[in-house]
Amino acid sequence: MRTLASELASSVGATVTLCGWVHRIRDLGGVSFVMLRDRSGSAQLVFDAKPEVTLESVIRAEGVAAANEKAPGGVEVRVEKLEVLSSAAPDLPFPVNQDPGKTSLESILDHRMISVRAPAILSIFRLQSTILRCFAEHLRGEGFTEIKTSKLIGTGTEGGTGLFAVEYFDTKVYLTQSPQLYKQAMVSSGLERVFEIGPAYRAEKHDTPRHINEFTSLDVEMAFIEGEQELMSLEERILASIFRGVRQSNARDLEAWKAAVPDPALCASIPRVSHDEAREIVSRETGKKVYEVTPEAERTLCDWALKTSGIDACFVYGYPRKSRPFYTYPAENNRTRAFDLLFRGLEITSGGMRINRHDMLVESAKAFGLDPAGLSDYFSIFKYGCPPHGGFAIGLERLTQKTLGLANVKEATLFPRDRRRVRP
Amino acid sequence: MRTLASELASSVGATVTLCGWVHRIRDLGGVSFVMLRDRSGSAQLVFDAKPEVTLESVIRAEGVAAANEKAPGGVEVRVEKLEVLSSAAPDLPFPVNQDPGKTSLESILDHRMISVRAPAILSIFRLQSTILRCFAEHLRGEGFTEIKTSKLIGTGTEGGTGLFAVEYFDTKVYLTQSPQLYKQAMVSSGLERVFEIGPAYRAEKHDTPRHINEFTSLDVEMAFIEGEQELMSLEERILASIFRGVRQSNARDLEAWKAAVPDPALCASIPRVSHDEAREIVSRETGKKVYEVTPEAERTLCDWALKTSGIDACFVYGYPRKSRPFYTYPAENNRTRAFDLLFRGLEITSGGMRINRHDMLVESAKAFGLDPAGLSDYFSIFKYGCPPHGGFAIGLERLTQKTLGLANVKEATLFPRDRRRVRP
Repeated sequence: MRTLASELASSVGATVTLCGWVHRIRDLGGVSFVMLRDRSGSAQLVFDAKPEVTLESVIRAEGVAAANEKAPGGVEVRVEKLEVLSSAAPDLPFPVNQDPGKTSLESILDHRMISVRAPAILSIFRLQSTILRCFAEHLRGEGFTEIKTSKLIGTGTEGGTGLFAVEYFDTKVYLTQSPQLYKQAMVSSGLERVFEIGPAYRAEKHDTPRHINEFTSLDVEMAFIEGEQELMSLEERILASIFRGVRQSNARDLEAWKAAVPDPALCASIPRVSHDEAREIVSRETGKKVYEVTPEAERTLCDWALKTSGIDACFVYGYPRKSRPFYTYPAENNRTRAFDLLFRGLEITSGGMRINRHDMLVESAKAFGLDPAGLSDYFSIFKYGCPPHGGFAIGLERLTQKTLGLANVKEATLFPRDRRRVRP
Repeated sequence: MRTLASELASSVGATVTLCGWVHRIRDLGGVSFVMLRDRSGSAQLVFDAKPEVTLESVIRAEGVAAANEKAPGGVEVRVEKLEVLSSAAPDLPFPVNQDPGKTSLESILDHRMISVRAPAILSIFRLQSTILRCFAEHLRGEGFTEIKTSKLIGTGTEGGTGLFAVEYFDTKVYLTQSPQLYKQAMVSSGLERVFEIGPAYRAEKHDTPRHINEFTSLDVEMAFIEGEQELMSLEERILASIFRGVRQSNARDLEAWKAAVPDPALCASIPRVSHDEAREIVSRETGKKVYEVTPEAERTLCDWALKTSGIDACFVYGYPRKSRPFYTYPAENNRTRAFDLLFRGLEITSGGMRINRHDMLVESAKAFGLDPAGLSDYFSIFKYGCPPHGGFAIGLERLTQKTLGLANVKEATLFPRDRRRVRP
């Protein structure tokens, strides 16, 4: 029977078998210490003589668990039998047992297969798994159904730009930018409330710490709502569930990055400002007149929100029509019923009410220069009875990034794809 | 406040507001009945005169809930106020309120945006959502971490055949057939136990009721195991959790297809036969000597399992080496440590132990005619310490199909992609 490192504390005096990776070796002459890593944490192994083993080798060690104040967790294992299950070559391409903050992002990503073993880096993805769990659990609790829709489409909802083409037998299709069409079809199917977790693609040549070309979209769509304020309230509840879950499950991962999640109770206090108000706030806060909510303005708004509401997040609604997709419900003065959520200076969500009237939608598509013929499947949703609805999408990697305070969204992506990177 | 159809029974005597789709209209002269559908079920609305409304229109109806034995659920609503939220055009392209069994699969899929509203069809995807939930919940309960990996890769693990090419900026990449490489990297990262739910692609020109070119792969990978028997046991526990969950949450969906899930307690009794034994059983059962486990043989094996073990599922292990990918752990006599799970006559899982020795893996790749240079990122996992491990993948759509007894896997796919179909 294998004992996990986290179970050692309750095994003092017993003979135990541990399995894991060799994280560190300290040879003090008469005695050697090996730090072993497993999925639960780490454990100190004690040897009389330096063991014949390299860093990152996978071992099975049998011995007696003994109390030792100086060992992590207060217990160490005096090894009597060592078996090397998989020997690591000595030319380790990435210093797994050192602070990854000292290595460049390029090197971390080039050697991702190995760098992900560094405990602080692995913490990012353990926390991300909690976000995935809490997002789904919360929505199921509110009566949402999970859907899985195709990522291959004939034409884009927002025109053909920004799409990656796929050679599909004798034709050409595109990778979806979002499951927008399908979420709306499924709201209209009678499910009313749906969510989807899946990849989304943007063929944009961005090269910033905020952009990746493939990301995981946490998509939500909901029918029979009166307006976008209900969507913001829903997102507040989702975030509160996520922050609560991360606090409960990821204390060591937050600690690894000296990060803290916002108080879940404060999610209900996230300020909601119109696009016009947002510009005024930023102008006032910075002393410089601004005309658009730029990335810099997004940071100012979050600072302002933290100061006034205790949480560094801010909803901005009423975006100008030209900056939103054609299916966005319009509002007066060329505004829309769309919103963004900014969190710790970064947009992590776009959403809004959707047009559910067939005639209005066809007109809007034309006004945006789209060819209605290519959208006939989509339009049929609205031609045959579609309830008022709206939704939003949260970028999983951006939310992970900002929860841990990472500098670049690629750090929060297991195998990021950008303009130049398609490996590993 | 909106009342759901399922809440009507506890609202008798009260004035309620229902929202939903017009499913059926019956005009009896002095009185008209409208059947309304919402996400919870359906409700009978009573009008003094035939309302001006078309099938599939979305309405809001206010009235008094009154007991009526003949109404579904024993309660109907005598409507005092009707509002049409979205009027449906009268030329409905798909008969939503009729038995979909009377319509061809082609027509169902051509009009998917509307056909998915048919209650029996929608049931398929409500049940599928439960499978997704139970799969993830079960694995989290056993200490697995959920991962999200890239679907775009530079080269295929199994060579370049069967892959869809993507035009990626100035280069070409491929859609992944499975997250195999990445699951193995994450097992070796120290997570030890990982799962992923995501799309997978096969560019194969199949045209059968069992194949789709894009499917949702439920992937599992686990370290520090002794052999493939542990993987089969894990899959049994996962299936038991799924069947238990479906029984609890999807009674009306099973009813819609007159389907029943296997007794969860019997999952631990699924027979495990070697490939050689499987051929003998099929030869004996059919009276015809067989040399391969063909799709027809898979059906015979499940019939045999039902007869002998009470559950129509069967594990087959020890497949010949040539029929399995290069990373499969070999066994004696040109066999492998790979297995399949057959369920109700269909293969729903492939899995097995993986080679975790670097030298053995490089040799195997060469023997399979693969270029080791294209696999260097993958090989680095094994060069620097990789525990013994294995895993498997369940096809979500096939499991859904067989759970409900559907004739074609495309019925269990919201927006299926095949050789000819890339819309809607």
